[in-house]
Amino acid sequence: MGEQLSFDAPRGMRDFYPSDMIWRNKVFDAFRAAAEAAGFQPYDSCVVENYDLLARKAGEEVGEQIYHFYDKSERHIALRPEMTPTLARMVAQKQKELSFPLKWTTIAQCFRYERMTKGRKREHYQWNIDIIGEDSVLAEVEVISAACDALRRMGLSSADFKVHVSSRRLLGEVLERSGVPADRHAQVFLALDKRGKMPDSEISAMLADGGLEESLIEKVFQILSLSDLEAVRAYLGEEASSSKALSDLDALFSLAATAGFADCLVFDIGVIRGLSYYTGIVFECFDTKGEFRAVFGGGRYDNLLTTIGGEPTGAVGLGFGDVVVTELLKSRLGEDAVLSRKGIAVGFMCDEQRDAAVKLASSLRASGEAVDLSLRAQKPKKFFSRADSSNAAKAVFIGPDDLERGFGKLKDLQTREEVEICLT
Amino acid sequence: MGEQLSFDAPRGMRDFYPSDMIWRNKVFDAFRAAAEAAGFQPYDSCVVENYDLLARKAGEEVGEQIYHFYDKSERHIALRPEMTPTLARMVAQKQKELSFPLKWTTIAQCFRYERMTKGRKREHYQWNIDIIGEDSVLAEVEVISAACDALRRMGLSSADFKVHVSSRRLLGEVLERSGVPADRHAQVFLALDKRGKMPDSEISAMLADGGLEESLIEKVFQILSLSDLEAVRAYLGEEASSSKALSDLDALFSLAATAGFADCLVFDIGVIRGLSYYTGIVFECFDTKGEFRAVFGGGRYDNLLTTIGGEPTGAVGLGFGDVVVTELLKSRLGEDAVLSRKGIAVGFMCDEQRDAAVKLASSLRASGEAVDLSLRAQKPKKFFSRADSSNAAKAVFIGPDDLERGFGKLKDLQTREEVEICLT
Repeated sequence: MGEQLSFDAPRGMRDFYPSDMIWRNKVFDAFRAAAEAAGFQPYDSCVVENYDLLARKAGEEVGEQIYHFYDKSERHIALRPEMTPTLARMVAQKQKELSFPLKWTTIAQCFRYERMTKGRKREHYQWNIDIIGEDSVLAEVEVISAACDALRRMGLSSADFKVHVSSRRLLGEVLERSGVPADRHAQVFLALDKRGKMPDSEISAMLADGGLEESLIEKVFQILSLSDLEAVRAYLGEEASSSKALSDLDALFSLAATAGFADCLVFDIGVIRGLSYYTGIVFECFDTKGEFRAVFGGGRYDNLLTTIGGEPTGAVGLGFGDVVVTELLKSRLGEDAVLSRKGIAVGFMCDEQRDAAVKLASSLRASGEAVDLSLRAQKPKKFFSRADSSNAAKAVFIGPDDLERGFGKLKDLQTREEVEICLT
Repeated sequence: MGEQLSFDAPRGMRDFYPSDMIWRNKVFDAFRAAAEAAGFQPYDSCVVENYDLLARKAGEEVGEQIYHFYDKSERHIALRPEMTPTLARMVAQKQKELSFPLKWTTIAQCFRYERMTKGRKREHYQWNIDIIGEDSVLAEVEVISAACDALRRMGLSSADFKVHVSSRRLLGEVLERSGVPADRHAQVFLALDKRGKMPDSEISAMLADGGLEESLIEKVFQILSLSDLEAVRAYLGEEASSSKALSDLDALFSLAATAGFADCLVFDIGVIRGLSYYTGIVFECFDTKGEFRAVFGGGRYDNLLTTIGGEPTGAVGLGFGDVVVTELLKSRLGEDAVLSRKGIAVGFMCDEQRDAAVKLASSLRASGEAVDLSLRAQKPKKFFSRADSSNAAKAVFIGPDDLERGFGKLKDLQTREEVEICLT
């Protein structure tokens, strides 16, 4: 006993001290409030999930990065890298009883065993909102709207962020039109998803390595320069009028205007979303200065339940991590933006005033106040110094005279104004 | 792809559907509100912790029951069985910078690999409140007070539960007085901790196996019949006046009376608390009908930081799980106690009214309402049936006539009253 252990958290895992929790709560509170305002119902499950379920959906790169282990009965379990497989499992389990469409939300801790580059931890919290069992594009609108609302509740505006919206189906139609055969689309998606992460020359090389002709590679880059839906419409020509993907995107932007958040959206045909399970509209949110990684991302995924053996079900979902948005908030609002004075500190000078302090703390709490009661007699200087540094809004320090008078002084620590408060 | 996987959560782990989340949020909200009212600051850390840290404190029985594994760099990590070692680590890490006493709180998911008996899961959430760096008994008072406040916020009263309070130091003094040598006290504590879980005859046998004489075993049971502090005072005789343990308990009951929750407390010399790290006052809360396991428990533990290599620091803490209290609440308040209507459902009959519905939903949300917007046109019967079963408080269903008039009907789903609401 007594030999010193490391006091550090395990590698890649975060500790949240009270000063960190102020930021985390600001972000989580906005997630919860936005989800509630938009009628999403909370759900949750354990961070420990069946490995087979996670591996089934994990896709190109996640499989290798799952923390997994065996329990004592040799069950293969793992720490989830994302919430969606669990969501699919929970929905599939009660698919006959649940009333669709579901609008569900959770804030889930997720784990990924990856290289420790700057800003990348091995765990993060991800806000998920999903609408399951709805084909209408209004599902996409509601999901994106709730995410923008969360950002606004955190203090950001459409000047700080934009949601880049596209459609994998539309990109498929445009590629088809340009002569890229359908069996090459997945490969093109994969290459284009690397844009911004590697130079375009390397993306060309990837496409060439995959056997795409020079002329088609040129066309792919031409497509990426289609900067709005009108340009896409013109490119598709007479096929535009029969494109469900195009009319869905038209409807999405129009409904966003009706709902009042069109200023948060931009069309961006280059948005792919790496995960191969998206089937329709996809979106990704970036800060307008382009300083950070994606703030959130999501889209339509219509095959998830069939992948694990459930019934076919249309779905739209979004994942919104806590790390990037917190960096963005600190950068845009300032590190001190969350500091606000609240609560009342109650202290006492000698043991003779302890009962009075306990009584006052109780009655203030009963009236709804948050009270930090000093646990021992102390000098006024020490008491006020702590009250100040702990950001109390007000303070009462009870000395012998106060007890005799039956009144203490409730001091506003900002304005220094005092009012009398009854001690009996 | 498509082969059916199990849709069950991993063995011993819980899924929370929205109907479960209503209960969980009721409990968690009370935890958070009570902690805030009492001036505790939130902290958190990752469920993954260093194995060595957990094993150091794990004590008699927990060590074997930790979920542990190695990461890819062969670091030995584990899912925490409790939060206290992590708390100690975090405090030790910043012991020089932090301003003591700390009053910290968290709701931590904890894992224990144990037999699957009724009501025992392999994970649970545990509300922790701790005061670190304070020797005064007012620390114990504040911790117990906050826990009782949480129970009251959940809808229970002192008629439903009692906090059983004792002191390991006091029990030690009484044992000493009765002739049980100090080096046998730990063994007696261990045996007495099994009371209620096994018959007294087996406890006698345990004590006898440990080499305690028949006459001393009798005295141990005699001590257990000391039913209040006066009886203890009489038993200690003239040593009573010099007993710090006794005067601390006197102060605790007196301060609880001053703070107004003495009705929630009973003295119970039989409260031991299994974990060997408690050093002073210990307490455990039970439902008054004696139907459930302990609702919460805690006490003073003054050696925790030295155990892991930090500076000596007095501390009081409490762990309050989510499982037992939820069972207790459902039993005392009824399964339907959490059902309350809230929010507004907005629907529309044909696609022509979709824009109006989207607009109305946006403006209601902007005014602070939670709105569940239907995502597609539907028949009124279907809309109202869903609104009703999802416990919406109010509903607006927009048909062609409403759109023409420019007004919809906002219906109270409880009273069936309707008021006009502007659609433009």
